[in-house]
Amino acid sequence: MQATLEAIVAQNRTLTAHGKVATYIPELAMGDANALGICVIDGAGNVHLAGDTDIRFTLQSVSKVFALMLALEDQGFAGVFDHIGMEPTGDAFNSIVKLETFASLRPLNPLINAGAIATTALIKGDSVAERFQRLYNYIEAIAGEERISFNERVYRSEKATGDRNRAIGYFLRDIGAVCGDVDEILDLYFRQCSIETDVIGLATLARRLALGPEAEPALSPEVLRIARTFMYTCGMYDATGEFAVKVGIPAKSGVSGAIMATAPGHELGIGVIAPALDQKGNSKAGVQALVDLSRLLQLSVF
Amino acid sequence: MQATLEAIVAQNRTLTAHGKVATYIPELAMGDANALGICVIDGAGNVHLAGDTDIRFTLQSVSKVFALMLALEDQGFAGVFDHIGMEPTGDAFNSIVKLETFASLRPLNPLINAGAIATTALIKGDSVAERFQRLYNYIEAIAGEERISFNERVYRSEKATGDRNRAIGYFLRDIGAVCGDVDEILDLYFRQCSIETDVIGLATLARRLALGPEAEPALSPEVLRIARTFMYTCGMYDATGEFAVKVGIPAKSGVSGAIMATAPGHELGIGVIAPALDQKGNSKAGVQALVDLSRLLQLSVF
Amino acid sequence: MQATLEAIVAQNRTLTAHGKVATYIPELAMGDANALGICVIDGAGNVHLAGDTDIRFTLQSVSKVFALMLALEDQGFAGVFDHIGMEPTGDAFNSIVKLETFASLRPLNPLINAGAIATTALIKGDSVAERFQRLYNYIEAIAGEERISFNERVYRSEKATGDRNRAIGYFLRDIGAVCGDVDEILDLYFRQCSIETDVIGLATLARRLALGPEAEPALSPEVLRIARTFMYTCGMYDATGEFAVKVGIPAKSGVSGAIMATAPGHELGIGVIAPALDQKGNSKAGVQALVDLSRLLQLSVF
Amino acid sequence: MQATLEAIVAQNRTLTAHGKVATYIPELAMGDANALGICVIDGAGNVHLAGDTDIRFTLQSVSKVFALMLALEDQGFAGVFDHIGMEPTGDAFNSIVKLETFASLRPLNPLINAGAIATTALIKGDSVAERFQRLYNYIEAIAGEERISFNERVYRSEKATGDRNRAIGYFLRDIGAVCGDVDEILDLYFRQCSIETDVIGLATLARRLALGPEAEPALSPEVLRIARTFMYTCGMYDATGEFAVKVGIPAKSGVSGAIMATAPGHELGIGVIAPALDQKGNSKAGVQALVDLSRLLQLSVF
Repeated sequence: MQATLEAIVAQNRTLTAHGKVATYIPELAMGDANALGICVIDGAGNVHLAGDTDIRFTLQSVSKVFALMLALEDQGFAGVFDHIGMEPTGDAFNSIVKLETFASLRPLNPLINAGAIATTALIKGDSVAERFQRLYNYIEAIAGEERISFNERVYRSEKATGDRNRAIGYFLRDIGAVCGDVDEILDLYFRQCSIETDVIGLATLARRLALGPEAEPALSPEVLRIARTFMYTCGMYDATGEFAVKVGIPAKSGVSGAIMATAPGHELGIGVIAPALDQKGNSKAGVQALVDLSRLLQLSVF
Repeated sequence: MQATLEAIVAQNRTLTAHGKVATYIPELAMGDANALGICVIDGAGNVHLAGDTDIRFTLQSVSKVFALMLALEDQGFAGVFDHIGMEPTGDAFNSIVKLETFASLRPLNPLINAGAIATTALIKGDSVAERFQRLYNYIEAIAGEERISFNERVYRSEKATGDRNRAIGYFLRDIGAVCGDVDEILDLYFRQCSIETDVIGLATLARRLALGPEAEPALSPEVLRIARTFMYTCGMYDATGEFAVKVGIPAKSGVSGAIMATAPGHELGIGVIAPALDQKGNSKAGVQALVDLSRLLQLSVF
Repeated sequence: MQATLEAIVAQNRTLTAHGKVATYIPELAMGDANALGICVIDGAGNVHLAGDTDIRFTLQSVSKVFALMLALEDQGFAGVFDHIGMEPTGDAFNSIVKLETFASLRPLNPLINAGAIATTALIKGDSVAERFQRLYNYIEAIAGEERISFNERVYRSEKATGDRNRAIGYFLRDIGAVCGDVDEILDLYFRQCSIETDVIGLATLARRLALGPEAEPALSPEVLRIARTFMYTCGMYDATGEFAVKVGIPAKSGVSGAIMATAPGHELGIGVIAPALDQKGNSKAGVQALVDLSRLLQLSVF
Repeated sequence: MQATLEAIVAQNRTLTAHGKVATYIPELAMGDANALGICVIDGAGNVHLAGDTDIRFTLQSVSKVFALMLALEDQGFAGVFDHIGMEPTGDAFNSIVKLETFASLRPLNPLINAGAIATTALIKGDSVAERFQRLYNYIEAIAGEERISFNERVYRSEKATGDRNRAIGYFLRDIGAVCGDVDEILDLYFRQCSIETDVIGLATLARRLALGPEAEPALSPEVLRIARTFMYTCGMYDATGEFAVKVGIPAKSGVSGAIMATAPGHELGIGVIAPALDQKGNSKAGVQALVDLSRLLQLSVF
């Protein structure tokens, strides 16, 4: 495994030059454009590392998976999906168009920004602070305390530049898809995006998603199943279909260049970081590293 | 003229039953659903009244014409149209879709909500209060002091329910079409919508638009020409084309049920109020009254 | 006038270098990219010429105005507008999107391709040949026999490359906006686009639109009014609003680089040819020549 | 298993009353609105039947899976996916909008109409007849000769009413996504939709997709994997995401009311027929029968 990972990193590192680090959140622009790091935790629980594995990065959209899981725990299936759809959109992650052109008056799925903001709004708690703490604890319980932190600078940077998300938030309230204080919902959303980890943390999270409900910490089998399903159908922005064909396992990317990928049949979790992104917002080298890894280990679910 | 107006009111009053008073701004819902009032100020300056002419109502989108005129005075042609387009949209007045799907990164015209918010943002002043006062004074100078007031309750109601406009405001800042504090820009926008008048005030405003630049108060000929042009091409939401065919003069409607229509060749101004709206947001009976009036007086510019 | 026209041609000829001759219909690609010719027929009926006035060119979308007029004569107001809307679209001339996303199941106006194909389908006759002959005769009666001809090569070229229009035609039949044989309707449409004239013919057509109903040949006042109105609100593709602001008179452009513009108040008709087009499909130098001419002669209707 | 299937049919038969048989192809309107039939072929190859299993029906969109497989055999991965995308659309199956609004100039995936027509165009052969025979033989080889026939009446009905598909076909050629004779491509497409089978045939096809590449007839492992993946991400029109969450196995529906579903991990194939459709075009009772069956047999891949 170690040799495999090192070969994959060596092969794909040059791809980082064909991507671009996200700049619309100024703090993200400081990501290392040439970096590529990968961690695989295999069926036996062994941790394998290759490349730039000491980088810390924020979860960004990877956090949407856990917000969805906690919202499902808090509100149940109908409590979530009465407000949020289950369909891939075919549009960019920050698109607002279908909110207006679709008669359904709800965002299409919980992993695009519109749906993720509506999902986050469903996490229970008496204040933003309490709601955020619950989500933070939920993620920390899975990844381990030493792996998880909060990046205050990224959070402030998100908040200072989050106008598109504010537009989505007010639009959602206008169509009745969220209620409550939009600024607070967005504050919670910006916070969840700013939770920080490293590839070991990411692979630990991914492996928990690969295991059955009885692993530690115990998770509802229905919630696990739904999380994996949405990662497979909506996890990689508007390149999800291509990722399903070429890699074939549930995954979720973030604009920090992180990808969390999970291979349930193999009880295997993967964390990748490579901040240079392709045009659709996925890690350029990270996606190709997963294409290679999936082919070598025959990870595809089909 | 008096008999003509009374006949038109008599004929069209029953149409109010086929419209609906706007309810998305709660204060507007208190408008009289059965009312229809009309005022014509003719070429000689005579005032003719028929129907429910003692109602006061807020300008709503009618104010967009004067915000555009003042922005043009403040910033000049390029200062406005570098940021805002000149094209009809074919979409609903509160649509956000073309902001995303068009590459131009600016709202399509100054009379839809997106463009009107961007236009209002261009009015000069050191504070919201000063900027609003300048616009209020501009309108008051034309309509006469006794005709113009400010409806605080409508303003508060707009502000409390303006989520779609907030969504548009943040979207505009995200694409760089406005800068500055979005809350302040929207506050100014909600205020301008809440300026109140009656049909005499509306007809006085309309008649000033029908006259040459040298009338009182003096206005730039270019600004007058541009205002009339946009009223003709974009003034009646997504029913502007039909209005041009059936009525054929520059006009601007508001969701209060007001329509301000101007017949430049006849030096004639018309104010109509009928709060019950059709599906596109225009006064149901008001539009038909103008169809009849235009036919009888042969007002169409073509 | 003569000196004015020559100055305008001299000033604007260099603009042709910033446009591109249409190539999607191969025969059109043979248009002279550097040419600019203009003809004005004034209120007294005097013909003024400047620039490259001996070029013959096909009407293309300019023909839509006359197809609309004949359809109105054949079917009456409701017979046309029950099937075709009256609204500007804000979209490109060959767009199909609103046919699907709008619930109305009819094209938005008679001067975009979708609406023009539906309009052409309403021209009466027992065969394509007869229907085309009626339209040809209608145009010829206005422009004069010696000005009008039919360009067989352009017609064949249109027919060979008209897939987008075929897509629109079948879509229209699917939604019930046209009935009958789609191939025949398109054949008629490609033929009308291929009617050929020169700037004198174009200005003669334009001047007839500027005159009252009693001029020769006699035309219905309602039909004249509707034609001018649609030219003003929808005549210049998705640059119609800007043209209204900057020129301010009814006009219709074609991808051959022709513009037919009419100034009703001045009883004046203008024909322009300059095959190099801007990005929206209007003649690059032709539009600017009309901006200059309108300013100098104060032609704007507002 | 037998008792399970009979219970599922009994439970879900009443749902047929909440669906509607497709009428836009007149021959389909003759489908039995109350019917529900199901066939499961299990891992051991045993055939289980319940409900209305003697109905014959056309494959309709189910055929798209096999057209894709044969196109992949004929042209290879790049030969197909250079022309057709891999992304779910979030739009209705017969939508044309994204062809215009997306810059990619290719249909989004091979299982929507636009992509399926482009896929069918890639099947090799010297004539429509030969190309169709190759596809027919391919399907027949899997399902068995006695299960497969061709419904001439449905084919003629499709051809007579296929205007939306013609619109898509010409649009595809206009943007360069298909080449060749559009009428021929559509003829081939209408023919493939008119291939007829019964639930045993459908389950046999489904079970072949569930098995490994070495089963009879031998199929490329890559082609099998891609077919299953697209069924999972794009197989149930714009309800695919919900089906993934609630059923969780690759499936493809057709407007005849057929659903072909495959459970690779269980080597199990399912065929369902229930002609009454829900609003998105999927079999109303058929989808719910699969929800129940998947839950009882724990078929979900995640």
